[in-house]
Amino acid sequence: MVTMLVDSGLETLDEGECVKLLRQTPVGRLAVTIQALPAVFPVNYVADEERILFFTGEGTNLRAALEGTVVAFEADHYDAEGRTGWSVMVVGQAREVTDEVTLEEVGLRGLRSWAVGSRDHLLEIRYDGLITGRRLATRR
Amino acid sequence: MVTMLVDSGLETLDEGECVKLLRQTPVGRLAVTIQALPAVFPVNYVADEERILFFTGEGTNLRAALEGTVVAFEADHYDAEGRTGWSVMVVGQAREVTDEVTLEEVGLRGLRSWAVGSRDHLLEIRYDGLITGRRLATRR
Repeated sequence: MVTMLVDSGLETLDEGECVKLLRQTPVGRLAVTIQALPAVFPVNYVADEERILFFTGEGTNLRAALEGTVVAFEADHYDAEGRTGWSVMVVGQAREVTDEVTLEEVGLRGLRSWAVGSRDHLLEIRYDGLITGRRLATRR
Repeated sequence: MVTMLVDSGLETLDEGECVKLLRQTPVGRLAVTIQALPAVFPVNYVADEERILFFTGEGTNLRAALEGTVVAFEADHYDAEGRTGWSVMVVGQAREVTDEVTLEEVGLRGLRSWAVGSRDHLLEIRYDGLITGRRLATRR
């Protein structure tokens, strides 16, 4: 549901709409800080009603950057022809998920990283921090 | 050209390949810090041999965040079916471009923001800071 139409042509989306959109794409981006410099990593993820979930490997730059810090996760989709699209951002701490039921649920939904290699740790970022979204309306 | 094949199945790309890929998509993402929190904004951009270029509007959160700080720009493309894709990141300061020739060149290449509204300021991030890229190889 559209809750606000701003001057820029970008509609602000409510949380329900944001979550619905997050469930439509398999790749998002994590913005983190590494050695005082910003960095962005694409990640495979899944979204449920409360959080986004993704795997990271032991010893990676990404994993180190996620330790105890607030990060921004973003997913979007754009139609280059129609010049329309949406973007949703979740800001919060990434926490490791160890619950076996959750791991199984995630497996059932087919989450796996496309990159080959060690991706042992399942992390979550919950929406109760901050979730915002914008939709670019059809051009008139 | 592929310069390195790492364990994770991600190929590290050289600068030439990164620039070539950047020229293939119209939307990237800027990672910035706003009030001590990370944020990610999608932007329309164009890439030439030396930099990426994009517009921002006066008085926007994004514009404020770009003032004098180092930011990360990322573009990627993923094929959900083939599970292949690439990601390129440029890290550096975003600087305003006022040169008229450049503005005209950008106009000729059709750069405009898809969002309606004031997007008066043309900014650049040059590759001479840091440009890195990775390609996810076809699954075997």
